[in-house]
Amino acid sequence: MAMVVDSLRLYERLAATVRGQIETRTFRPGDRLPSVRELSRSSGVSVSTVLDAYRLLEDQGLIRPRPQSGYYVRATFSPRAAEPSRSAPLAMTVDFDRSELQEAMLRAMGREDVVQLGFALPDPDLLPHERLARLTSRVAREHPEASYGYGPVSGHRALREQIAQRTFVAGAAVSPDEMVITSGCQEALSLALQSAVPRGGVVAVESPCHAGILQAIYQSGLRSLEIATSTRDGICIEALEEAALNGIAAGDPILGCVVSPNFQNPLGFLMSDADKQRLVDLSRRYGMTLIEDDIYGDLGYEVERPRVLRSFEGGEDVLLCSSFSKTLAPGYRIGWCIAGRRHADLRRLKYGLNVSAPSLPQLVIAEFLSNGGYDQYLRRARKAYAASVHRMGDAIARVFPAGTRMTQPQGSFVLWVELPSGADATRLYGEALSRGILLAPGRLFSAQDGYGSCVRLTASQWSSKVDEAVTALGKMLRG
Amino acid sequence: MAMVVDSLRLYERLAATVRGQIETRTFRPGDRLPSVRELSRSSGVSVSTVLDAYRLLEDQGLIRPRPQSGYYVRATFSPRAAEPSRSAPLAMTVDFDRSELQEAMLRAMGREDVVQLGFALPDPDLLPHERLARLTSRVAREHPEASYGYGPVSGHRALREQIAQRTFVAGAAVSPDEMVITSGCQEALSLALQSAVPRGGVVAVESPCHAGILQAIYQSGLRSLEIATSTRDGICIEALEEAALNGIAAGDPILGCVVSPNFQNPLGFLMSDADKQRLVDLSRRYGMTLIEDDIYGDLGYEVERPRVLRSFEGGEDVLLCSSFSKTLAPGYRIGWCIAGRRHADLRRLKYGLNVSAPSLPQLVIAEFLSNGGYDQYLRRARKAYAASVHRMGDAIARVFPAGTRMTQPQGSFVLWVELPSGADATRLYGEALSRGILLAPGRLFSAQDGYGSCVRLTASQWSSKVDEAVTALGKMLRG
Repeated sequence: MAMVVDSLRLYERLAATVRGQIETRTFRPGDRLPSVRELSRSSGVSVSTVLDAYRLLEDQGLIRPRPQSGYYVRATFSPRAAEPSRSAPLAMTVDFDRSELQEAMLRAMGREDVVQLGFALPDPDLLPHERLARLTSRVAREHPEASYGYGPVSGHRALREQIAQRTFVAGAAVSPDEMVITSGCQEALSLALQSAVPRGGVVAVESPCHAGILQAIYQSGLRSLEIATSTRDGICIEALEEAALNGIAAGDPILGCVVSPNFQNPLGFLMSDADKQRLVDLSRRYGMTLIEDDIYGDLGYEVERPRVLRSFEGGEDVLLCSSFSKTLAPGYRIGWCIAGRRHADLRRLKYGLNVSAPSLPQLVIAEFLSNGGYDQYLRRARKAYAASVHRMGDAIARVFPAGTRMTQPQGSFVLWVELPSGADATRLYGEALSRGILLAPGRLFSAQDGYGSCVRLTASQWSSKVDEAVTALGKMLRG
Repeated sequence: MAMVVDSLRLYERLAATVRGQIETRTFRPGDRLPSVRELSRSSGVSVSTVLDAYRLLEDQGLIRPRPQSGYYVRATFSPRAAEPSRSAPLAMTVDFDRSELQEAMLRAMGREDVVQLGFALPDPDLLPHERLARLTSRVAREHPEASYGYGPVSGHRALREQIAQRTFVAGAAVSPDEMVITSGCQEALSLALQSAVPRGGVVAVESPCHAGILQAIYQSGLRSLEIATSTRDGICIEALEEAALNGIAAGDPILGCVVSPNFQNPLGFLMSDADKQRLVDLSRRYGMTLIEDDIYGDLGYEVERPRVLRSFEGGEDVLLCSSFSKTLAPGYRIGWCIAGRRHADLRRLKYGLNVSAPSLPQLVIAEFLSNGGYDQYLRRARKAYAASVHRMGDAIARVFPAGTRMTQPQGSFVLWVELPSGADATRLYGEALSRGILLAPGRLFSAQDGYGSCVRLTASQWSSKVDEAVTALGKMLRG
């Protein structure tokens, strides 16, 4: 291995070499770097020098260690595409209706001739739908009661046990008895909000955030308050604290807070453990119930399974919502809410809303999870999504106009892109749609009028068609 | 055939003979009587005398003609068991919480050692679950997108088409495009209420009515107003009009009204077409949106398919809610709301609540319905439920204390029983449960404190076990 010889110390020189390998994409984001022993041998330096070099690169945010596994290249983009700046704090809102836009997008989703970068759909080719179909045949035959009986209100225990096991891996020891199976994460969020926040109450949210969260708040008769959020670190805890204090002073306190610390949609950030603990502490100090949307929690590029808020000290009252829609089967509509002491409330709300979740998909997923292979599949999916997101990032950096900024997601499969000043994202959305490309304009991610120059692009699949679509978007923007 | 000879006219004597055959249960409710020609021949009277006799029995409410089919024995009970009286008008209510009772009932439902007369569950042996399981295997294999994709927000068109066809048979020509597939009838009612009545508004309901309706009203942030209802004719239209006028006078008008004209749960009545038209007229006059719960509409004993409110003049704005939970597969959680001009609203609410209904059960039911055989199955089910309800009615009349009253349902598979004055239904519920019999106490069917001496018993199945349970209940009541 050729070494750059200059005034730097030995480990700094080695680090520069490795950085060069990363910059030239010899090692791409998500790739494992040579082991410490291998690099020591190949570069002729001591093991401790290699360790120093890797630690330097880690401090620089370029690589990341994984216990018992080695060092991996972190998600980064070319310096040309800077990250969007932190969003500004925004005003309270009581209404959110983007139904016209959503209807138009839904119509486009159904069209075969449209390149689908608009909805956060997982890659069908990755999802284990064939195995699920085979399991469905067997479970339908073996469990006639899944058809002729009403299932348990909280959901089938076999599935709840599997979910509790997986939640344990995310750091939280929970019981299957404090959980309710729902029709997807969206319903889990609705029920969590209704159980935790009295009608008319204020709920803080990250800004930007997934439209579904704003809809759930509005449809539950609540008000949303959008909080400044960093594209890299998550919700700004200082801004949240300030808003909490303002609310108390005004006699209209923030009663709930919906956050997605793990690979938020649309920003893709992963909150640090320290910030997660601060968030939990803050929620307790000001009497805000935290509702965590963890739907992308299993889809981190480098971290196998980040911790959920419930696993932090004082986090027992966090309502944890998620689903299998991004990882197994969107069409099954199976999600859950781990509700802790609010379990009876949530169960009552679920019963009153639609009695219980359908039985068959629950039993099929429980079978799939208990038979193993899910983690292996997730590893493959994580790697694939990291690769396709990075390819789209590269393409955007190449073809979008100068001044474009975009996120550096740590997980999930979407990119948040801020167009150069003056560019109108809603107009781009319209023009793109007329040319057979569906994207999500920024105004879908806020109940305010913000994000007019932002778009979210789904990058769950990379193909020449997607490549061409991104190139076409670049051309539209260059006018 | 032996004839009773007395001072009566010939046709009256013939009618008395036939009545005797019905009273001795030679011909049981639901049975077809001899054709006019057969009886003319067998009794040696003219065809017109037989027609006169049959018409007399029809006027007496004992038999019923079916076009192109003949005369059938109507649902009647022994004179000993009178019907409960009309319920009294009750006050407005903003809250309804029977969760403790419901939780206890749900726990009991899961126990194998409990005779289940408490929930309105269809008979598993009647439901076509084996055929549905076979279809499930095929559909899962042929439609991988049912797993990997999000289904349409309004539901799959194949199913909506089948439902529109069936609604046409119920008298209303509707388009598949004005319908949203939901997670059961309960969710359909919730969404219908939310789309039709602004938060805080007043909704009139039949009293008693299904607990789910009261829960849906309360969880949607609305208030309920219970209206006097006849066990035989349905909601008292005069009482509803009076309540509507009072509401307008008080500046707090009734904005919605949930009714089940076809075989209401728990009373089992079938409203006459004349009353249905009056109800539609009244709703238009006072600006109340009608929401029809038609979940038992296909389960009439004598009427193959009664008309839905939408089919009456001026009924275009009635929101029609139903599901397959009583007729095909409770565990599938598939229902619908035909929303007419409110369709876009309902779609938006469904999307915000839980995106869409799961795909696979929709496609399976669509396949089942389009392959025929559903009507044949329904005929069998209707006959079976009529028989088991009548057997339970007979048993109650035999073993319950004198003074017991009960409904004479025209469809569905439940009986509403009013215990003799002084009897405490909640106490009976507790005592029965401790002896392994689950029933539904009357307080579940009102947000007021009424119906303390009423119970609903499910009679979807008749067996020696159920027979023994009813006998045991009678003993408990006799002390």
